[in-house]
Amino acid sequence: MIKPLSLLNQRISSNVMVELKGGRGYRGILDGFDPHMNLVLRNAEEMQDNQAQRKMDLAIVRGDNVIYISP
Amino acid sequence: MIKPLSLLNQRISSNVMVELKGGRGYRGILDGFDPHMNLVLRNAEEMQDNQAQRKMDLAIVRGDNVIYISP
Amino acid sequence: MIKPLSLLNQRISSNVMVELKGGRGYRGILDGFDPHMNLVLRNAEEMQDNQAQRKMDLAIVRGDNVIYISP
Amino acid sequence: MIKPLSLLNQRISSNVMVELKGGRGYRGILDGFDPHMNLVLRNAEEMQDNQAQRKMDLAIVRGDNVIYISP
Amino acid sequence: MIKPLSLLNQRISSNVMVELKGGRGYRGILDGFDPHMNLVLRNAEEMQDNQAQRKMDLAIVRGDNVIYISP
Amino acid sequence: MIKPLSLLNQRISSNVMVELKGGRGYRGILDGFDPHMNLVLRNAEEMQDNQAQRKMDLAIVRGDNVIYISP
Amino acid sequence: MIKPLSLLNQRISSNVMVELKGGRGYRGILDGFDPHMNLVLRNAEEMQDNQAQRKMDLAIVRGDNVIYISP
Repeated sequence: MIKPLSLLNQRISSNVMVELKGGRGYRGILDGFDPHMNLVLRNAEEMQDNQAQRKMDLAIVRGDNVIYISP
Repeated sequence: MIKPLSLLNQRISSNVMVELKGGRGYRGILDGFDPHMNLVLRNAEEMQDNQAQRKMDLAIVRGDNVIYISP
Repeated sequence: MIKPLSLLNQRISSNVMVELKGGRGYRGILDGFDPHMNLVLRNAEEMQDNQAQRKMDLAIVRGDNVIYISP
Repeated sequence: MIKPLSLLNQRISSNVMVELKGGRGYRGILDGFDPHMNLVLRNAEEMQDNQAQRKMDLAIVRGDNVIYISP
Repeated sequence: MIKPLSLLNQRISSNVMVELKGGRGYRGILDGFDPHMNLVLRNAEEMQDNQAQRKMDLAIVRGDNVIYISP
Repeated sequence: MIKPLSLLNQRISSNVMVELKGGRGYRGILDGFDPHMNLVLRNAEEMQDNQAQRKMDLAIVRGDNVIYISP
Repeated sequence: MIKPLSLLNQRISSNVMVELKGGRGYRGILDGFDPHMNLVLRNAEEMQDNQAQRKMDLAIVRGDNVIYISP
């Protein structure tokens, strides 16, 4: 048994894939999070419906948009 | 009488089917959860409208997307 | 005067009909619930727009999808 | 000045009309409620866009679907 | 500076116009409210897209549907 | 660094523009607010998709509809 | 590991890009925020589907509309 936020904590500084509501997604390095699943992503690439959109050095993603995070 | 989260707890390390809002679903092994029904799934297969989409070693699913979990 | 959750409690082990947002419904035996109206259903039959979809031995339905429960 | 829940309390055992989001409505006898406006309705008739749909001996309606209750 | 709920309190027993999400509106006498902006309206006239729909002696409107109240 | 609600407090009695979800907007004098961003607007002009709709002496706008407030 | 709100705090007085639900975006200087991710933006330029819409000296953006903030 592992708590979802404990698993996130183990993946700090690792690559993650984040899928948001509305067909938006991010790939990047997980730099931080909080209990609302707000995320800090570094070197993030944004995708819309699996099409690369833009690169961002840093992005703070609000947790209520998240569908899943794949570490 | 069994509490929903107690039933989830009994199914740790078992296969579950998870249906999300928007026609998305997952089959995988339940590795963990928290009181918000955030889930950790291992060897998860994602489906969209009953079509297999992709496999993920691990996925953290945010609980507010869940419609039902079938243990 | 009866509280909604007290009525649910009286119906443990009885058949219930559960209607969810989005035209989805379940018939099954109510095995449990919690204050969020998360439900445990046994021998549940899922319906979509009144068409039978599938049978599940057990289903944990997240309460925020519920429109009504008819005991 | 009357609090909304105090008015509901005065109408226990009386007929009420309940309108939900999505064009769904109920007429029935108010048997109970809680602070979330979860309702217990007896001898409830369900309507969709003002068309009678079905009768239910008892229905527990989840409060977050309610638009208004007319005692 | 006046708090929104203090202004509502001053308008008890006065006519108000209430606009809800989804193009629905009410005109009536404000008989009560609570901190969620749940409202009690007396002699309420319901409008849909500015068309009068029906009259109700009393209506309890759930606060989360409210866009604005014009005293 | 200024907290959003502190900035609102500085603008009491000043003109503000408020944009709501659904293409609705208001211009008026900010008479009050609370921590939910419920607002009291005086001499408010309502706009829908940038078209003036109506004038209201007073309007209490529920905070959860707000996208932004421009003081 | 950096908490999302700690990163925001480091970016006070810096340029940020804010993307909201519904295709709306802002570029501006971050003057403040609170734990709900309500934001104060200065010299903000509003964009809709990547088209510049208008400039605002100050804007208070309600946090629940935010998808991400890129410092």
